Amino acid sequence: MSDLQNTIVDMAKGAKKAARTLVSLSSTAKNDILLHMANSIDAKRIFIQSENQKDLSAGKEKGLSDAMLDRLELSDNVIESMMNGLREVAALGDPVGEIENMVRRPNGLMVGRMRIPLGVIGMIYESRPNVTVDAATLCLKAGNAIILRGGSEAIHSNMALASVLQEALSSQGVDSDAIQVIPVTDREAVTLMLAQEEYIDLIIPRGGEGLIRFVAETSRIPVLKHYKGVCHIYVDSDADLAKATPILINSKTQRPGVCNALEGVLIHQSIATDYLPKFAEAMKQKGVILLGCKESVGIVPDITPAMDSDWGSEFLDLRLCVKVVADMDEAFAYIDEYGSRHTEIIITENYSKAQRFIAEVDASAVMVNASTRFNDGGELGLGAEIGISTTKLHAYGPMGLKELTTQKFIVYGQGQVRS
Amino acid sequence: MSDLQNTIVDMAKGAKKAARTLVSLSSTAKNDILLHMANSIDAKRIFIQSENQKDLSAGKEKGLSDAMLDRLELSDNVIESMMNGLREVAALGDPVGEIENMVRRPNGLMVGRMRIPLGVIGMIYESRPNVTVDAATLCLKAGNAIILRGGSEAIHSNMALASVLQEALSSQGVDSDAIQVIPVTDREAVTLMLAQEEYIDLIIPRGGEGLIRFVAETSRIPVLKHYKGVCHIYVDSDADLAKATPILINSKTQRPGVCNALEGVLIHQSIATDYLPKFAEAMKQKGVILLGCKESVGIVPDITPAMDSDWGSEFLDLRLCVKVVADMDEAFAYIDEYGSRHTEIIITENYSKAQRFIAEVDASAVMVNASTRFNDGGELGLGAEIGISTTKLHAYGPMGLKELTTQKFIVYGQGQVRS
Repeated sequence: MSDLQNTIVDMAKGAKKAARTLVSLSSTAKNDILLHMANSIDAKRIFIQSENQKDLSAGKEKGLSDAMLDRLELSDNVIESMMNGLREVAALGDPVGEIENMVRRPNGLMVGRMRIPLGVIGMIYESRPNVTVDAATLCLKAGNAIILRGGSEAIHSNMALASVLQEALSSQGVDSDAIQVIPVTDREAVTLMLAQEEYIDLIIPRGGEGLIRFVAETSRIPVLKHYKGVCHIYVDSDADLAKATPILINSKTQRPGVCNALEGVLIHQSIATDYLPKFAEAMKQKGVILLGCKESVGIVPDITPAMDSDWGSEFLDLRLCVKVVADMDEAFAYIDEYGSRHTEIIITENYSKAQRFIAEVDASAVMVNASTRFNDGGELGLGAEIGISTTKLHAYGPMGLKELTTQKFIVYGQGQVRS
Repeated sequence: MSDLQNTIVDMAKGAKKAARTLVSLSSTAKNDILLHMANSIDAKRIFIQSENQKDLSAGKEKGLSDAMLDRLELSDNVIESMMNGLREVAALGDPVGEIENMVRRPNGLMVGRMRIPLGVIGMIYESRPNVTVDAATLCLKAGNAIILRGGSEAIHSNMALASVLQEALSSQGVDSDAIQVIPVTDREAVTLMLAQEEYIDLIIPRGGEGLIRFVAETSRIPVLKHYKGVCHIYVDSDADLAKATPILINSKTQRPGVCNALEGVLIHQSIATDYLPKFAEAMKQKGVILLGCKESVGIVPDITPAMDSDWGSEFLDLRLCVKVVADMDEAFAYIDEYGSRHTEIIITENYSKAQRFIAEVDASAVMVNASTRFNDGGELGLGAEIGISTTKLHAYGPMGLKELTTQKFIVYGQGQVRS
């Protein structure tokens, strides 16, 4: 084994050993650790920011964009927000140990399902260093050990944050291997990590589509992923247009660069002539560039004709596709073809169409008369999220504490045997 | 693309298209189809059995063992049991459409989780042809399309059963691609199937450890698997031995060849001198061969000294490991090292030790004072099972109808936007 391989295997083994001890940690103990971590981050702010400065200087030298340097910076605001995150997660309910559906079987066995940690989670993410703390926090509260692999640009920041979190673990008598950051930036470390199926139970990648595809294709460990968010709103013939316009504006413009931003609008043909000009005007005022189908360009000549490659694109900016559809079935077919199973919305006042949309559309969140921006763990009531899954196994949609656990069967018997 | 590749891709595409229509099928419609299938199997019994005869003749020529031929045969009994299976699944509740945890958020959004089918399931199994019907039945009831790949020895039987099921689908106006059997026996077909991640949502392999490892390592689609069942019973110092002996006998001998049979017994040292001779005698009367640690051989010289390779073996016959342990922590360490996360049991009357065992042992089913043989979908109340998962993602333990579904978020709004 190479030195790097030794390092990764040792980290994975250590994480598994630590995970074994986390299972029986009480919620109070876990919450105490989280609060202690918040205080430690505050106390070691100067150390953290001076390590962060090394990454920022190196990033400037490498010519990182201002946007990337901004994401990299551990400003006082970001540090406060990490501390608040720790305190908020400490205040959340602990899913571990919950027993669901306990029933008495005909033979007297009491059978239920107990929620338990997953074990060891591997997290692979790009340059934002606050993810190090956010992810470690959620994993720890759910009783999991975590191995973190952040972007190479943030290596000093991530190592500094990890050392603070590990010290907090040790000071509370908990195995510090419960939270580990991979200390090298070689890409090979990721490949080695993805091969530790004996020790790691789940991989969560967060970043660009390229990273996520690489992880999904390389990993021998289960992966919870979302490739992209191509979210649509279908404005039905029975839409309340006074609701439609604010929802469309909010979905597209409140934060265009995130996965739950709107990328495509489908408008029912019976309202297109009347509504498209108003919609186009409202969007123009917000700086949105509409890319439309032939029919929509015929109604509003200002609209740029869409190219084939525009349909289904995740723009992450102010471009927006618009298409006139004959009916809801055409909308369904479009969503099936171009959607990414992330967020799909209908604007309608028609009861039956709302119910059919909710029941039949396949996406992690399907909504009526609301903004796409609500597909978010906090907004949907999970308290906090570690990511959004657009694959259906284990979790579909935002993943909070509960999604970082699983259930085992528990059985209380009185001597029963099977006949 | 090769002809075979074309075939597999077309099947996968067809399954995905069919799955789209199954989502909106009512429970009544699905149950009618299942009952119709049961009647069709009855009506076409002669055709099914004559096709099965081809497999049996070929199997005899190939020199299959009597046990394998027995598993291959679609006797009247097996056919009745398939028909009963169809009727039982028709009688089970339908998980699809269930909405859980619907809550009103502070902004008035109603947020819940709706249970939906997974989509397309690929099932890879060995020679028992009745699995074709059992698996198709459960998948259909949960609203999934299924692609079946059975053992080559059963190809005529599986094709005959599939044709009967497909006819029943068509006669009820449902896309017959919802149930498909891969019509060729080339191993390459499996590899091709495991690459259809665009169309297939889940792979369930059932068979020997070699098959399952091959599938897990080759598949780019999520796999729900269990490698083996190495189940243990820990007989605590506070055990009621009048319960222990019948449970141990039942766990080991009621059906030794299955995954929930007992493979190892751990006995607390404080009761070993007294209990081991009685236990050994009871086991001897049932024909069980004990393989023991040094200490147990010291107490009962009849016990065969275990070899290193015996610990953690899945014998699937009447061999049984026995080890004297100092305390529950040693039992935990043994289970961690040699268990397969399948079924782990404590025999005790001590409340605290029972609760600690339930909370801390990591296995798909953890039980107190009951036989290992209860880790089974039917026995635990799932109605029917498609397999037992010993990995933690999505499902851990027996998988019934609910485990063949997932949940999406649904949101009813009144025009809300995010601020």
